[in-house]
Amino acid sequence: MQTRPTLAIIGGTGALGSGLATRWAAAGYTVIIGSRTADKAKSAALEIATGNGAPPVRGEDNATAARLADVIVIAVPFSHHDATLREIREAIIDAPPGKIIVDAVVPLVPPKVAQVQMPAQGSAGQIAQELLGDLARVVSAFHNVGAAKLHNGGDIGCDVLVCGNDAEARVEVIALTAAIGMRGIDAGPIANSAAAEALTSVLIGINRRYKVDCAGIRITGIAAGA
Amino acid sequence: MQTRPTLAIIGGTGALGSGLATRWAAAGYTVIIGSRTADKAKSAALEIATGNGAPPVRGEDNATAARLADVIVIAVPFSHHDATLREIREAIIDAPPGKIIVDAVVPLVPPKVAQVQMPAQGSAGQIAQELLGDLARVVSAFHNVGAAKLHNGGDIGCDVLVCGNDAEARVEVIALTAAIGMRGIDAGPIANSAAAEALTSVLIGINRRYKVDCAGIRITGIAAGA
Repeated sequence: MQTRPTLAIIGGTGALGSGLATRWAAAGYTVIIGSRTADKAKSAALEIATGNGAPPVRGEDNATAARLADVIVIAVPFSHHDATLREIREAIIDAPPGKIIVDAVVPLVPPKVAQVQMPAQGSAGQIAQELLGDLARVVSAFHNVGAAKLHNGGDIGCDVLVCGNDAEARVEVIALTAAIGMRGIDAGPIANSAAAEALTSVLIGINRRYKVDCAGIRITGIAAGA
Repeated sequence: MQTRPTLAIIGGTGALGSGLATRWAAAGYTVIIGSRTADKAKSAALEIATGNGAPPVRGEDNATAARLADVIVIAVPFSHHDATLREIREAIIDAPPGKIIVDAVVPLVPPKVAQVQMPAQGSAGQIAQELLGDLARVVSAFHNVGAAKLHNGGDIGCDVLVCGNDAEARVEVIALTAAIGMRGIDAGPIANSAAAEALTSVLIGINRRYKVDCAGIRITGIAAGA
């Protein structure tokens, strides 16, 4: 991709989705908020400012947002993951295969969200790749980023583990990560998403036990700008 | 535990086990190396210096080492995990229940050790707790620590995620971690060991892709000495 991709944020009205949308819009990306109803998406879009000459953030229903985007980011609760994937599959079924889908969904199972409870398939990322097949190159990322920190605008203080079976797609998502001030780490195949997803429950528990609100992770032992 | 516990390192002749034994012996702990044969354990023990007035490191067969120790550390390959647990269970079956077992085993499945392949039970830590039942309080730790760094003697540059269902046992293992120069993080119940274990494959892959030999993790957003 030579120019900046157009990004759809499915679940863009939620805390994580709107935080990512805010960051990418400020960085000059064309951003489309997706929600189950276009009205809800449009009103969320109005609240997000853009930078670097990017057009205003627009809001669409999920299917329209997915169809219009080069890269589709999924930021919905795990309980909506499966239905959202099916909706996206329908929306992109006639598109060229290999579209990049960034899956930020974490398989939290209430009420014990601070306890790791991985799905039988291994991870949410693997569920997405299996369901979308050749239609999409699923890259999982952003599991461990506190939504509040995305909205606050300051340093996020957290690396992003980026997993997917296609190395080139991982590179593109690492660039999208860098564009909003975080270091993306090439963490290997989509099966490895289990580590990043499981860490989210660990970090939720650390927040409680250490009485903080923003525990995150850093990978040590590699160059700072790697 | 008011005094320093006596530590058995099952698999103490391997890279991780001998590295941990070296660190604890230097810190003044009484350390017993366990191996499948006492002879092998004894010769490994001879190579480890002690500090702070600790007695010489001794070597014993696994069962004897387990019986003599207050805290049993398991540092064997995953292929030996099950047999080792059964051996320990036999050895401690008449001991008071609730002995602390520190499980450092990672479910790596060769040849794809850089790909997360978690067991159906969730994690090696859960396998251990299920198998040992009330006999032991299993605490998993040390999954992400490079053995070479333990042997080199310098700063390890990696936090240790400490998981287990008994909060008091987690505190004791966090103290054992601090005693050898690493920050132990209370990472919650044994189910959360999945995150730490899965991270090991991610770190192995990062070592390859970023051409380093010692990638590790740090938890951010909590006080440095927490």
